Amino acid sequence: MYKTVEWLDNKNAVKLIDQTKLPLKEKFIVTKSYKRIAKAIKIMEVRGAPAIGVAAGMGMALAAIESKAKNKEQLIHFLENAGKILTSTRPTAVNLFWAVDRMLNKARELSGDVDFIINELIKEAKLIAEEDIQSCINIGKNALELIEDDWTIQTICNAGSLATAWYGTVGGVIREAYKNKKGIKVYAAETRPRLQGARLTVYEFMKDNIPVTLITDSMIGTVFSQGKINCIVVGADRILKSGHVINKIGTYTMAIVAKYHNIPFYVAAPISTFDLKTPVEEVIIEERSGDEIRKINGEYITVPDVPVYNPAFDITPPELISAIITEKGIIRNPQPDTILKLVKS
Amino acid sequence: MYKTVEWLDNKNAVKLIDQTKLPLKEKFIVTKSYKRIAKAIKIMEVRGAPAIGVAAGMGMALAAIESKAKNKEQLIHFLENAGKILTSTRPTAVNLFWAVDRMLNKARELSGDVDFIINELIKEAKLIAEEDIQSCINIGKNALELIEDDWTIQTICNAGSLATAWYGTVGGVIREAYKNKKGIKVYAAETRPRLQGARLTVYEFMKDNIPVTLITDSMIGTVFSQGKINCIVVGADRILKSGHVINKIGTYTMAIVAKYHNIPFYVAAPISTFDLKTPVEEVIIEERSGDEIRKINGEYITVPDVPVYNPAFDITPPELISAIITEKGIIRNPQPDTILKLVKS
Repeated sequence: MYKTVEWLDNKNAVKLIDQTKLPLKEKFIVTKSYKRIAKAIKIMEVRGAPAIGVAAGMGMALAAIESKAKNKEQLIHFLENAGKILTSTRPTAVNLFWAVDRMLNKARELSGDVDFIINELIKEAKLIAEEDIQSCINIGKNALELIEDDWTIQTICNAGSLATAWYGTVGGVIREAYKNKKGIKVYAAETRPRLQGARLTVYEFMKDNIPVTLITDSMIGTVFSQGKINCIVVGADRILKSGHVINKIGTYTMAIVAKYHNIPFYVAAPISTFDLKTPVEEVIIEERSGDEIRKINGEYITVPDVPVYNPAFDITPPELISAIITEKGIIRNPQPDTILKLVKS
Repeated sequence: MYKTVEWLDNKNAVKLIDQTKLPLKEKFIVTKSYKRIAKAIKIMEVRGAPAIGVAAGMGMALAAIESKAKNKEQLIHFLENAGKILTSTRPTAVNLFWAVDRMLNKARELSGDVDFIINELIKEAKLIAEEDIQSCINIGKNALELIEDDWTIQTICNAGSLATAWYGTVGGVIREAYKNKKGIKVYAAETRPRLQGARLTVYEFMKDNIPVTLITDSMIGTVFSQGKINCIVVGADRILKSGHVINKIGTYTMAIVAKYHNIPFYVAAPISTFDLKTPVEEVIIEERSGDEIRKINGEYITVPDVPVYNPAFDITPPELISAIITEKGIIRNPQPDTILKLVKS
């Protein structure tokens, strides 16, 4: 798999795959403009929380170059403005704010001439990407003890390369397993309504020649009961101290059906996914436009004015989760004490 | 709701709703030609096992009129040929063979002049439709003791009007509940890959002003856990003596998730659905073209050559089924003895 978001040293430009065109077209965007990065985030040419963070960091590095600032004060002023434009694109993505703040803080703490600061900011943006990649690789390596030869791994949505800078969280688990074990295969659930499984997960594993089979979300009972699946690995948008995992709608249903068939259910996510403050009762699940369900490829598949319920995420309780796999290690039977121990270690 | 398949006395013609155009267009087919009926079955303008049976019976009545036979021998000869054409359309639909045989046997046992026999055959075709409607109404009436005021009923696929002559099996349960109880609502799962829930179930309940909400198949865990659903009612393509229910893919997953949340899971089906001979190990599940998953409205939603697994049905074991509702009564906790007792009663 190519990199989802990449800094081109020879051009001082950012290269992104346009995910709105996948899987039918592979169109890359190469830009030297931070405003173009903001647009790419807004219209979801780049998506996936870690990938958005990396793109925003690189957007700030582009802004530093674009600023043509004569001194640090001018540079900081330009960057603050650029940061506002970048963060106004998708106001709920935590990684977006985190990456912009990290770049701004770096700029503020540096001293020296403007060229030196700009070069350091480019290094910092590349470091954000490198850390994301390394964390995904470590998640994958840590998962190896849970996965055996000839296993078939079921996943949902896309927590692969395309959601990160390059390797993926679930993608990391599957790629490391594929490299280090024999006969690893993947089943991807298509993931209605937005079909990230069909559009992105299938595409990126086929690209890497990892055997992948596509099913509808409704088929999990059948494939689990037929013994086709050895474990489930899903990503996470947020993990609470209680062990509740917030992830793409369909994850909770999959976890129940896995439990019924005694199939291990694993969550792969970096430590940055943990939210140790919010209690489960206070988690707000984003409800999205009904047209995401009513229309596919712009065409209605149902009565246009039918009432629709469209929560984007669901909450899987810890009793359905066999283990959480992080870059720092594995949390088996997640509970507040085991989670705190690893996260704070 | 209008009738799905109807005999027009004033024209001696058959009127069908073209289900391939629903829900975006309401196009009716009116024909005096049994070959047109055969085509309608073949290209799924009419679908749903009971509805196909009714259409085939009426097709045989049309054939009798079209025969211009001068004597019973000529008529039988013409009908046998018409029966072959009608049954060659969808070779696995049991109701199709059953309806054609019933019409042929009726023709053979009648005596009198040809006009008399033809009139009797028209009556018989209308009787098949009437019996289907009555059986669905009785299923609905029998279900009333299971359903309470203000309940929301979850279903999958379409076992409504559009799968039968008029009233539906699950449709019968929901329509009778809606008439006899207060505040009945429906949740329809869209039912990938062919989207019968989104295309047909939503349409027919909106037509009858029964409140319906559309969700994706992956959302059942969420709506069940939120207390939105009071019971599940699904149809059946076949019910075994052991109590195993073969129905649309997704039914088994839904049954597991219902059990996890202690929500009653009901199957609504006429006695004709029971297959008392085949053991569960010998049930063959039809695997359909992968393009049903790969394409929606003729457009690819994934990598065109991705391997796909596409079983059309799944098997729900009796331990997940709270009751089977038939026109003869309710089988609670279905097991071989309770099933045989009711079916043979």
